[in-house]
Amino acid sequence: MNIYEESLKFHEEKRGKIEIKSTCKVENANDLSLAYTPGVAEPCREIHKDPNKAYIYTRKWNSVAVISDGTAVLGLGDIGPLASLPVMEGKSVLFKEFGNVDAFPIVLDTKNIDEIVKTICNISPTLGGINLEDIAAPRCFEIEKRLKEKLDIPVFHDDQHGTAIVVLAGLINALKIVNKNLKDIKVVINGSGAAGTAICKLLLSSGVKNIIMCDINGVITKNKSSNNPYMEELAQLTNPNNEDGLLKNAIKNADVFIGVSAPNIVSKEMVKTMNKDGIIFAMANPTPEIFPNDAKEAGIKIMGTGRSDYPNQINNVLAFPGVFRGALDVRASEINEDMKVAAAYAIANSVDKKDLNPDCIIPKAFDLNVQTLVAEAVKKAAVESGVARI
Amino acid sequence: MNIYEESLKFHEEKRGKIEIKSTCKVENANDLSLAYTPGVAEPCREIHKDPNKAYIYTRKWNSVAVISDGTAVLGLGDIGPLASLPVMEGKSVLFKEFGNVDAFPIVLDTKNIDEIVKTICNISPTLGGINLEDIAAPRCFEIEKRLKEKLDIPVFHDDQHGTAIVVLAGLINALKIVNKNLKDIKVVINGSGAAGTAICKLLLSSGVKNIIMCDINGVITKNKSSNNPYMEELAQLTNPNNEDGLLKNAIKNADVFIGVSAPNIVSKEMVKTMNKDGIIFAMANPTPEIFPNDAKEAGIKIMGTGRSDYPNQINNVLAFPGVFRGALDVRASEINEDMKVAAAYAIANSVDKKDLNPDCIIPKAFDLNVQTLVAEAVKKAAVESGVARI
Repeated sequence: MNIYEESLKFHEEKRGKIEIKSTCKVENANDLSLAYTPGVAEPCREIHKDPNKAYIYTRKWNSVAVISDGTAVLGLGDIGPLASLPVMEGKSVLFKEFGNVDAFPIVLDTKNIDEIVKTICNISPTLGGINLEDIAAPRCFEIEKRLKEKLDIPVFHDDQHGTAIVVLAGLINALKIVNKNLKDIKVVINGSGAAGTAICKLLLSSGVKNIIMCDINGVITKNKSSNNPYMEELAQLTNPNNEDGLLKNAIKNADVFIGVSAPNIVSKEMVKTMNKDGIIFAMANPTPEIFPNDAKEAGIKIMGTGRSDYPNQINNVLAFPGVFRGALDVRASEINEDMKVAAAYAIANSVDKKDLNPDCIIPKAFDLNVQTLVAEAVKKAAVESGVARI
Repeated sequence: MNIYEESLKFHEEKRGKIEIKSTCKVENANDLSLAYTPGVAEPCREIHKDPNKAYIYTRKWNSVAVISDGTAVLGLGDIGPLASLPVMEGKSVLFKEFGNVDAFPIVLDTKNIDEIVKTICNISPTLGGINLEDIAAPRCFEIEKRLKEKLDIPVFHDDQHGTAIVVLAGLINALKIVNKNLKDIKVVINGSGAAGTAICKLLLSSGVKNIIMCDINGVITKNKSSNNPYMEELAQLTNPNNEDGLLKNAIKNADVFIGVSAPNIVSKEMVKTMNKDGIIFAMANPTPEIFPNDAKEAGIKIMGTGRSDYPNQINNVLAFPGVFRGALDVRASEINEDMKVAAAYAIANSVDKKDLNPDCIIPKAFDLNVQTLVAEAVKKAAVESGVARI
């Protein structure tokens, strides 16, 4: 039985990977009068007087909706909300198992940005946080931006920021090995969708000065016009030396190549033009932009992919459970850049100095200790940046 | 410590009466590859090909949202969505404990009918059913009607239909004791809001011919004009003998009085004008329309209230968990009149003939056997009325 057959059997047996459990028993009239009428009227009255009490008397403090419109699901594309549900349930499982967050899936029967924003705002009183998932770019940017403006709870598009945090974590450790600094390196990012954009912005927030973004048309420059305001923004933020051309031109003298794009688009010849002690994170899934063996043969020092069967897996699960755990614990009003950078350093620093080597720059996904460290770092950053509310 | 203090302490200790649990462990790479990527892609693809497979590979089959806008919460009125959350969580607990239904609260930050309908439709792909709760009349009628037209999953406003089912159940058994038939009795319902309207319609569906509806202005007649189309509809359906006047006039020669209105509005004098072997369900809470002792002194044979400290508590929890259990088990596209009537008879018949007496017409709320009987009856009625889909 291959993995797909096995997974189908597994899903059929489970009939849903999450369920609702009561935290209290209702076995007699007294139980009922506490959990429901007439007793329940009192916490209602208290919350009516002071809305903050909802964090004390209900599950709002720990509730996160995993929300998708099903437009960019895994590598499957726009398969619609219903078909995206197994992914959103899986994500909810990871939230619980890795971060003790009560997450449940809400998949949306609309692709209209206004409606998505309105719907999520309308259901938000239930929630302590919102995890957006598998929403196609550039709509995901607009949706997240407007929700952040309207809501006072964390809104986090994991395909963007989760990926960016783990990439930054890997890069921090990789640079320790090759003895280079964030501010000195040249980074080429291929792919200007959700993940590429967020990686670019988080690297800028962390001190990287020279980033070249590429997409299917080559280097993004300030001269090329675009109908997409998010591309225009990227053009303004990146490419300080006004380089131009295709990926093969941009990658010359790069210290770091980050691929969130398509299989096999980086050749050995291109890698050979990179600077000494090159770093590649090739995250196209399941077939990366270049395979680790080829990259190493062409002289690359440190290599990461999205796959679990090679060293240095860039896996979002290292970030989002701990990030939300930390944000929820201090009732943060948002997840800001400081909190994301703090999460990345916590992941990076969880790899012991003595263990650090080119094949070990990222901790294992199942190390729950990492989540605790991430949560602590995120809490601290939330407090220091003034967005914690307890 | 009184019940309210005790409940506050209870809610503070629980910090939420429900939580999300995983049905699977994620302890190693193999677990992760089954529950999440890459394995999860396969159920996604299968659902994309055949949407019905969502009922096999996800929790949709057992998921119900308890949805409120917080406009008519218990006796507290329009306290808003956030303050209604403890009630919705309590309801979710009852769904799980009494019907093994995975219910979670969604409270809505809008009172606009169009927006409520749109929001609920947008989040519906996640759900196997929708329980509307504590939404004020007449908005609740419009919202439920439009959702039923748009969605192919059950939509059930429990304040209406749950109450109506348990009232009908109590009435069926009360009539056995006094040897009267549904088709022969005169019923006066005081209160034409959500519950009163639904009780009226379900009694009509069950064969009652002569119902007089009263509201604060007295008897609802075909002559009085109203801006409210739902009142107009009630006027057309009821009062076959064109009676007029106030409640004290209508109640004369009534066999049954059903109160879903206000405390202490029925006097002993009024009760004395009712027919022999009178039946009263006085469900204003916590103070009923008339107290059982007063009603009995005035000659009433059978008396029910909404309270747990008197015999014959008319308690919704007898209906909604089993009703949804039955509807979900056959993937019913709606909860129709036949299914509600079947639920009422199942509740009534769960009281053993030998136990039946004026102080025992309704089973105890904690008798889980009742829920099983209700679920079975609802399933059968769904199949026979053609709304079952498996």
